Amino acid sequence: MENSVYKVVELIGTSPDSIEDAIGSAIQRAGLTLRNLQWFEVTQIRGRIDKGNVERYQVGMKVGFTHDREEQ
Amino acid sequence: MENSVYKVVELIGTSPDSIEDAIGSAIQRAGLTLRNLQWFEVTQIRGRIDKGNVERYQVGMKVGFTHDREEQ
Amino acid sequence: MENSVYKVVELIGTSPDSIEDAIGSAIQRAGLTLRNLQWFEVTQIRGRIDKGNVERYQVGMKVGFTHDREEQ
Amino acid sequence: MENSVYKVVELIGTSPDSIEDAIGSAIQRAGLTLRNLQWFEVTQIRGRIDKGNVERYQVGMKVGFTHDREEQ
Amino acid sequence: MENSVYKVVELIGTSPDSIEDAIGSAIQRAGLTLRNLQWFEVTQIRGRIDKGNVERYQVGMKVGFTHDREEQ
Amino acid sequence: MENSVYKVVELIGTSPDSIEDAIGSAIQRAGLTLRNLQWFEVTQIRGRIDKGNVERYQVGMKVGFTHDREEQ
Amino acid sequence: MENSVYKVVELIGTSPDSIEDAIGSAIQRAGLTLRNLQWFEVTQIRGRIDKGNVERYQVGMKVGFTHDREEQ
Amino acid sequence: MENSVYKVVELIGTSPDSIEDAIGSAIQRAGLTLRNLQWFEVTQIRGRIDKGNVERYQVGMKVGFTHDREEQ
Amino acid sequence: MENSVYKVVELIGTSPDSIEDAIGSAIQRAGLTLRNLQWFEVTQIRGRIDKGNVERYQVGMKVGFTHDREEQ
Amino acid sequence: MENSVYKVVELIGTSPDSIEDAIGSAIQRAGLTLRNLQWFEVTQIRGRIDKGNVERYQVGMKVGFTHDREEQ
Amino acid sequence: MENSVYKVVELIGTSPDSIEDAIGSAIQRAGLTLRNLQWFEVTQIRGRIDKGNVERYQVGMKVGFTHDREEQ
Amino acid sequence: MENSVYKVVELIGTSPDSIEDAIGSAIQRAGLTLRNLQWFEVTQIRGRIDKGNVERYQVGMKVGFTHDREEQ
Repeated sequence: MENSVYKVVELIGTSPDSIEDAIGSAIQRAGLTLRNLQWFEVTQIRGRIDKGNVERYQVGMKVGFTHDREEQ
Repeated sequence: MENSVYKVVELIGTSPDSIEDAIGSAIQRAGLTLRNLQWFEVTQIRGRIDKGNVERYQVGMKVGFTHDREEQ
Repeated sequence: MENSVYKVVELIGTSPDSIEDAIGSAIQRAGLTLRNLQWFEVTQIRGRIDKGNVERYQVGMKVGFTHDREEQ
Repeated sequence: MENSVYKVVELIGTSPDSIEDAIGSAIQRAGLTLRNLQWFEVTQIRGRIDKGNVERYQVGMKVGFTHDREEQ
Repeated sequence: MENSVYKVVELIGTSPDSIEDAIGSAIQRAGLTLRNLQWFEVTQIRGRIDKGNVERYQVGMKVGFTHDREEQ
Repeated sequence: MENSVYKVVELIGTSPDSIEDAIGSAIQRAGLTLRNLQWFEVTQIRGRIDKGNVERYQVGMKVGFTHDREEQ
Repeated sequence: MENSVYKVVELIGTSPDSIEDAIGSAIQRAGLTLRNLQWFEVTQIRGRIDKGNVERYQVGMKVGFTHDREEQ
Repeated sequence: MENSVYKVVELIGTSPDSIEDAIGSAIQRAGLTLRNLQWFEVTQIRGRIDKGNVERYQVGMKVGFTHDREEQ
Repeated sequence: MENSVYKVVELIGTSPDSIEDAIGSAIQRAGLTLRNLQWFEVTQIRGRIDKGNVERYQVGMKVGFTHDREEQ
Repeated sequence: MENSVYKVVELIGTSPDSIEDAIGSAIQRAGLTLRNLQWFEVTQIRGRIDKGNVERYQVGMKVGFTHDREEQ
Repeated sequence: MENSVYKVVELIGTSPDSIEDAIGSAIQRAGLTLRNLQWFEVTQIRGRIDKGNVERYQVGMKVGFTHDREEQ
Repeated sequence: MENSVYKVVELIGTSPDSIEDAIGSAIQRAGLTLRNLQWFEVTQIRGRIDKGNVERYQVGMKVGFTHDREEQ
């Protein structure tokens, strides 16, 4: 069985600053326990509002990585 | 009837600068007449093009707020 | 804050005659209380049947307008 | 212009008890300011979790009503 | 990196009794291994039929939780 | 041709009481003419409102059954 | 079991003339064998092109009717 | 009323061998009772797993045919 | 390689008069440069509003044609 | 402007034999006029039926390629 | 709590040969660490193109399994 | 035939820096061969990951332009 297999996990990154920063937060966090992260896809852009301004962006993402034996 | 009820309105914010700025414009405008804005969700990212560059981002959003008696 | 902001409302127009006529009914009705209607988008085309014929078209629409202070 | 026109608003009802109760909360609240509510459609069933149990159901709904002059 | 990150897992809860009970089963089961469960979203309501009656509700859900280091 | 084939029909069950009861009504009705009902999937949850309360739940469903020769 | 149950069938009506005429064709045809047709919902608007003009509109529809014992 | 009308039914074909074989099973089965089958569209590809291998493909399909008087 | 291949392009036709007329405009325009147009599918029905009436229908469509060597 | 840009075209490949063969037909045909094809994504699996068997698979696809100056 | 609970993971299987082979690769890989795999559902069929031919199929899938204590 | 007709093409812009920059790259590239670009709509936000950080944003877009005779 030499065909590559990938696994996809769903994360939500947050940031008070920007959509890109929220994406980066989730990817950096995922990188702590998952090796070989390869791509992401944004599934949702939401956020919290406080006193009439964006308090925090919440960006839903799917993140794909090579399915090595160590990760479940 | 003590269960909270929220209302959701649909807005389109615009900005020549960025997606985040377009989101902020809509939320600030909504805050002038609606109290207790709580969250938003982006439903669409579009824009106008002029002379081969982005002239204006148009970001469709749903914005949720506590359904007080004063707002319809 | 000079960036334009638009609001979108959802309506259902009806007509015994045609889809276009149902769209027109909703837009004319909305124009009685909302100024600056700018565009519409059809979201659903349904209808009632009576005695084996279309009795009434029901056309769901989103209608967008400039978000002036007077409208909520 | 004798064709009926309906308006649709989006609400989120909540309840600690059941989905039906969350639906009922939103409809009762809407009935305080909107006359002639006619139908609803569930768009989303979510909820908050606390200590491993459902704390509160949050049911997103579209609610349709006859578009009278008094309501916007 | 102080921005919160959440993880979302997909579960299917089942119950012979009700949709709410199926949701509760999945959340209670998830709580055995995942801490800090925060919200759920129903993605699908299905069921098995036996002898012309509902035998079992099967409710698909996404469940979100704070992405701590211990969980993958 | 020994591979199993299933057929799927679309029904709407109704009930003044609950979503589960509306599902049950449709399945019981379908069982009068279709044998071997096996599963259902909810496609839509709607309802009628009367005097500010839910009058009737209307639950759209797909129902699958073994495609025997007798059923069309 | 006094709760109403409805059945939904999927049809495609065609017409060289208009979308409304294609809808009408399907409903009239369905009325030959199904009693109590009550509503329709358009699911798709397609058509065939011949020599650079629309040759025929093909309108996909779901049609709902009271689920009497005689119809399957 | 000379405009053609088509009917669409939803089937699930199964096969232990391939997606194409599952499609073929459903079409051959449908052909036993429905004349003038004309086209199909795959709506879902699922399957059962047994001992770590695909046991059976389950392919959901819509199948269209000329709506003759004999078929309902 | 004798299997037919088709190409699909996306167009938006407009008309002040009707949805059908907007469809026809796009097909006639496409026919000036593309041979062998075969079918279309409506993807979106929108429009501009002026002074409370529909000013122009905008109908989004996919148009399919035989993929000859001359067309790209 | 050194950032890569890709273009995506929509094709329908056909084959009497298999889904994979229909995909291959479209890609080979596209390769005659487009250089640097890089990926595809299946958007639809349909087919024609003749005498109760699949006559031809029709597989809708999006095909992406590097946006060189020569291609439009 | 005797109600069964299932977990669903998202995988992408690949194969140079066929869609079925890509599905099989993902299921076999998942079976190395997850017991009681029960069903799969295809969510996406994509692929890489090299020199005008399909180089590799990439099939996105959801895979469901009994949620035992050992798996997370 | 004086009704305006627009054409829509699908592009993917990329950038290591931001979503807005990826959008801009695609629009500038398209402007080299297409005149009268008028609007865009984002259809997908993805990206590549390298060493635990976003390496490149990939933003799928539809871009609309006036359908002049010179463009295909």
